[in-house]
Amino acid sequence: MNLLHGRQTWIYENPPEIIGVGTVAGWRESQGDLAEYFDVIHKDNYVGQKTFEQAEQRILEEACNIAIRNSGVGRDEINFHFSGDLLNQITSSSFTARTLAIPYIGIYGACSTSVLGMALAGLLVSSGSANYALASTVSHNNTVEKQFRYPNEYGSQKNGTTQITVTGAGAGIFAKSKLPQKVDAPKSIKATSATIGKVVDLNISDPYNMGAAMAPAAYDTITRHFAERKIPYDYYDLILTGDLGHVGTNILLQLLEQDGIHFQNGKIDDGGKRIFTNDTKNLAGGSGCGCMALNAYGKIYKDMEAGVLQKVLLVATGALLSPLSTMQHESIPAIAHAISWEVL
Amino acid sequence: MNLLHGRQTWIYENPPEIIGVGTVAGWRESQGDLAEYFDVIHKDNYVGQKTFEQAEQRILEEACNIAIRNSGVGRDEINFHFSGDLLNQITSSSFTARTLAIPYIGIYGACSTSVLGMALAGLLVSSGSANYALASTVSHNNTVEKQFRYPNEYGSQKNGTTQITVTGAGAGIFAKSKLPQKVDAPKSIKATSATIGKVVDLNISDPYNMGAAMAPAAYDTITRHFAERKIPYDYYDLILTGDLGHVGTNILLQLLEQDGIHFQNGKIDDGGKRIFTNDTKNLAGGSGCGCMALNAYGKIYKDMEAGVLQKVLLVATGALLSPLSTMQHESIPAIAHAISWEVL
Repeated sequence: MNLLHGRQTWIYENPPEIIGVGTVAGWRESQGDLAEYFDVIHKDNYVGQKTFEQAEQRILEEACNIAIRNSGVGRDEINFHFSGDLLNQITSSSFTARTLAIPYIGIYGACSTSVLGMALAGLLVSSGSANYALASTVSHNNTVEKQFRYPNEYGSQKNGTTQITVTGAGAGIFAKSKLPQKVDAPKSIKATSATIGKVVDLNISDPYNMGAAMAPAAYDTITRHFAERKIPYDYYDLILTGDLGHVGTNILLQLLEQDGIHFQNGKIDDGGKRIFTNDTKNLAGGSGCGCMALNAYGKIYKDMEAGVLQKVLLVATGALLSPLSTMQHESIPAIAHAISWEVL
Repeated sequence: MNLLHGRQTWIYENPPEIIGVGTVAGWRESQGDLAEYFDVIHKDNYVGQKTFEQAEQRILEEACNIAIRNSGVGRDEINFHFSGDLLNQITSSSFTARTLAIPYIGIYGACSTSVLGMALAGLLVSSGSANYALASTVSHNNTVEKQFRYPNEYGSQKNGTTQITVTGAGAGIFAKSKLPQKVDAPKSIKATSATIGKVVDLNISDPYNMGAAMAPAAYDTITRHFAERKIPYDYYDLILTGDLGHVGTNILLQLLEQDGIHFQNGKIDDGGKRIFTNDTKNLAGGSGCGCMALNAYGKIYKDMEAGVLQKVLLVATGALLSPLSTMQHESIPAIAHAISWEVL
C-alpha cells in the first residue's frame, strides 16, 4: 500500500467518512449567507466568560462536543485530536484538549490549520493508525486583533486590503469506512485525498495585506494537487480557498490565468468572501482559522449532504508571520494545504 | 494492516530507519557531558546574526542541513518536514521551512514537540505516506527568556525549581527500510513504536516549576505505552524523559513507585539533568524543545550506533502554557509523547 502520490499528495485508499461536524459562530458571522448552516451562534463576544481567551476556548469546546455528539461515537473511542489556533502557544486548542481528554496532537499553520488537521486526521484513519480522529480549529476576532494588531478600542485605522478575523470554531470526526460497502448503501461524505503545501514567500511584508501574501501559496498547492493526483482541472464541482478575501482571490485567479488555467464561473470561490455580507465595512473579507472551518463544516458539508455538491477541494491558506517577525522587518512566509471531500 | 494498538499507541510495522541526524548547540550546553556528541557548538549566542530570533532560525537550519547531508538523501526527495518551536507562531520553524522548501507540517507541543515530530515522521514512513520525512526542533535561551519570562538583562531572580531553556537544535531523517532485509545486513537505528499523550493538568500554576507540572504527563504516557505495547517494564535499556529536570524527575519516580513500578538504577533518566553540568547555577536543569533534541540526536543516537544501547524509549514532555494564560491565572496543562528507538 502506498498512500503517497508524487512528492506531497496522499490519496486515501480507504477514504475516511466524516461522520459528525460542529460549527459555532459569532454575531458578525451570523449576518452573512452562511448563518443558516451554523449549529450555534453567539451574540455575546465574551460567550458569558470573563476573558476573550476563555470565550475562544469555550466555542472550540462547543464545536468539538457537537461534532462528537453528531457522530454518535463515544469520546473515549476517539483516538486522536488534531487542533491548532492563532493564539500564542495555541492555548485555546491545548486547554480544549485538556477538557476533552483525547490524545492530542497540536498543529500550527496559521489559517491553514483547519485543513492541515483534516489532512492528518484523514491520513491516520486511512492508514489504520486511528479508528476515529477529531480535527478542530478556532479563531476569535477579539483575541486575534489584540495579539496581532491593536485592540478595537484603540480605533486603529484599517485599509481596504485588511481582512477581518472570523469568530468561529469548527470540528469534524473522521472515521473508518465500514467495508465492504454494499452496492445499495447510502452514500456519505468522505475525505479522498490531500496535498501538504510548501512555504512560499514572494517578499510581501505588509500584515494588512495577507491575501496577497497567501495567494501564491494557494496557487502552488492547487497546481501540485492536480498534477500529483493526475486529475483534470474540471474534476471538482468547487474549489474553495479558505481566506484569501477579495484581494487575494483576484491575485490567485490571475496566477492561474497566466498558467492558462481557467475555471468556469462559480467553480472556484473563497471562504473569506463568503463568510460576511459584501459590505465595505467588512473590508477585504474574512480570515482566521475559523473562516474555513465555518465554511467547510457548515455550508459545504450540508450542501454535500443535500446532493448539491459531489466533489469539493478545500484549500486553506496561512500567513506564517508573528507580530515580532513583522517588527523585525521579515517578509510573510505563506502556506496552503488542500483536502478533497467527495460523496462516495 | 493496523498500526494502532490500544487507544493511542502505534507499532510501526515497517520500522523507519533514522538515516541521518544533526545537532547544533550553544555554549552553556557545550560545558556538559553531552558536548562531544554535538555536530556544531556556537560560542556566540547571536550566531553572527542581528537578532536572537534570527540566531534561533539559523541553528535550526544548520541542524536540518547536517541531518540531510548525513542521510545522503537529496533535499528534493524528502516528502515532509515536521517542525515546531517555542516562539509565538513557531516562526523559527516556519522561516526554516521557507529556506528548506520541503512540504511543511507545523506542530506544537511545547518541549514535547521534539518527540511529536519524530512520532508523526515515523508514522508517515511506516504507513507508506512518505519515503523520507524530516523531524526537527529548536529552542534558544535568549528568545525564550525574553518571551516567557524576562530578558536576562532585567536580572529577575530565579529559584531552585526553575529550569534553564537549552540553546540547541536537532534534526533527523526518517526513511523507509530497505526490504526485504538480508539476514547478514548491518543493523541500524529504527523507530519502532510511539505513544501520543493526553493533556494532564494537576492544577499547578507556577511557571517557575514546570517539572512538577509535566511529571504527571510523563507518568501517564509511560504507563500507557507499556500497557498498549504489551511489554514488560524492563524491556528498554533506557527510558529518557526530555526535560523534567531534577525536581520533575523525582516526582515522576515517586508516581511510578506508588504504582509499584521500580526501575533499576540508570534505567530511567532525564535529558534536562544530563544536558548541563550538575552545578547550582544550572538550577533544576535544562528544558526547551532543544533539550530532548540534543540528547536524542546526540548521545543517544551515537550510543546506539556504538552498540552501547539497543532499545531506548524517549519521552518528551511539554508545558502548554502561554505568558497570557499565566497572567490570567490558568493552571499549566502538560503533555508527554513517547517514541521507541531500537537497533534492528
